[in-house]
Amino acid sequence: MRVSVIGGSTIGPETAAVAEALGGVMAAVCRGARAADGETIGILPTDDRRDANPHVTTPIATGLGHARNALVVMNGDAAVAVDGAGGTLSEIGLALAQGRPVAGIDTHDVDGVEAVDSPTAAVTYVERAAGAD
Amino acid sequence: MRVSVIGGSTIGPETAAVAEALGGVMAAVCRGARAADGETIGILPTDDRRDANPHVTTPIATGLGHARNALVVMNGDAAVAVDGAGGTLSEIGLALAQGRPVAGIDTHDVDGVEAVDSPTAAVTYVERAAGAD
Amino acid sequence: MRVSVIGGSTIGPETAAVAEALGGVMAAVCRGARAADGETIGILPTDDRRDANPHVTTPIATGLGHARNALVVMNGDAAVAVDGAGGTLSEIGLALAQGRPVAGIDTHDVDGVEAVDSPTAAVTYVERAAGAD
Amino acid sequence: MRVSVIGGSTIGPETAAVAEALGGVMAAVCRGARAADGETIGILPTDDRRDANPHVTTPIATGLGHARNALVVMNGDAAVAVDGAGGTLSEIGLALAQGRPVAGIDTHDVDGVEAVDSPTAAVTYVERAAGAD
Repeated sequence: MRVSVIGGSTIGPETAAVAEALGGVMAAVCRGARAADGETIGILPTDDRRDANPHVTTPIATGLGHARNALVVMNGDAAVAVDGAGGTLSEIGLALAQGRPVAGIDTHDVDGVEAVDSPTAAVTYVERAAGAD
Repeated sequence: MRVSVIGGSTIGPETAAVAEALGGVMAAVCRGARAADGETIGILPTDDRRDANPHVTTPIATGLGHARNALVVMNGDAAVAVDGAGGTLSEIGLALAQGRPVAGIDTHDVDGVEAVDSPTAAVTYVERAAGAD
Repeated sequence: MRVSVIGGSTIGPETAAVAEALGGVMAAVCRGARAADGETIGILPTDDRRDANPHVTTPIATGLGHARNALVVMNGDAAVAVDGAGGTLSEIGLALAQGRPVAGIDTHDVDGVEAVDSPTAAVTYVERAAGAD
Repeated sequence: MRVSVIGGSTIGPETAAVAEALGGVMAAVCRGARAADGETIGILPTDDRRDANPHVTTPIATGLGHARNALVVMNGDAAVAVDGAGGTLSEIGLALAQGRPVAGIDTHDVDGVEAVDSPTAAVTYVERAAGAD
């Protein structure tokens, strides 16, 4: 199972802690998964894969700018949204349009997004929702 | 001035009437505009420009699927959202991310979207907001 | 009928003259055409439609960088290649992959590209080849 | 080091043998490389990552159709072209436009592509050429 983590590039300290925990949980989620096993894929808006953060194991440059948001969501079986502004909102919309379950932590209040208050709850939700396909 | 009209591909009869009126108002908005004057540009998700509806004067095929949503918003100075589901939500997010003013009629209730109740109000809002740049 | 003119962004003085003539011939080609009549569409690699040259009547920003080359070819019924380096070669390849007839003036010598020595010959070729579809 | 292998989706039996050998050599090339070590990334034109062939370790769906060719080349430090028709030609053009060294085996005869007659020679060439950056 692959999970798209979508969120703002600038976040406050409180959200940072949640995101870090989520990263940890994400690794746990991915552990048993065949196709992804712990791999972190970074689908970048720029055309240079060296722009990825150092924790990305497979950087993918796109050079597509905002249009790359569609690829972020398309490559996950579900999405977890954390914080975020317009870009995250667009990814939530794309996830819903593509039938991906979405859990949200401290993010936009949108119909179809399961608001949860912890990374564990997010993972539990998307595992169950994506598994139900 | 170019206005991106964003909305669901399937709409109820009430929204259809609004959309039709909006089309009329859009033409009025565009009339005086140099680059666009009354032109209707359809930026399509498919790779065949013949997929455009017959009222589109300049169809642009992209073959990009959902990623084309970024282009829809990028090519307007402002956006008016009408109804719509996930795809429209993504376009609202992209418009906000790209600093476009957005007026919404019977659409998602999102921070940054000016909810209005008529096409005229939508046009008035986006003209003023885009003009303020 | 729409014709994609593909070519290098930097050209020598001799090619410039050909390109200018071709522009004129293009207008002649387009004149009778219903969908395009004389319209000049600029499909830009950048995300700002103001980057188009002043002779473009309908600028379309994409923000896609090199990936926009696919859209340039997709939106024409045929292509005329003038001069050009790698970017033009990619567009020739995309045109052939999408079944578009291609005429070439002082450009890459590639199977499937009809080498011609004047804009008039280019137009004659693509009109006939695209008409035969 | 990442190498983009570009080639036709339908190939004759002779080219198939070359491509298979090249796959083996590719693994050898990748072995010592930090970021990629032996990983096979499939950047797909479709929007479903299950369309990748079974030897792809990291499938990336794009839904971009022909526009995805730009991403294939962008994500390699060099390219090896094998056989191929228009799509491959477009990727050669994109590789040259983006300053990637290109080795070609039984492919288009294009300025800037180093024609070689074996996978080993291709790898030797692109390693040296990309290393010289």
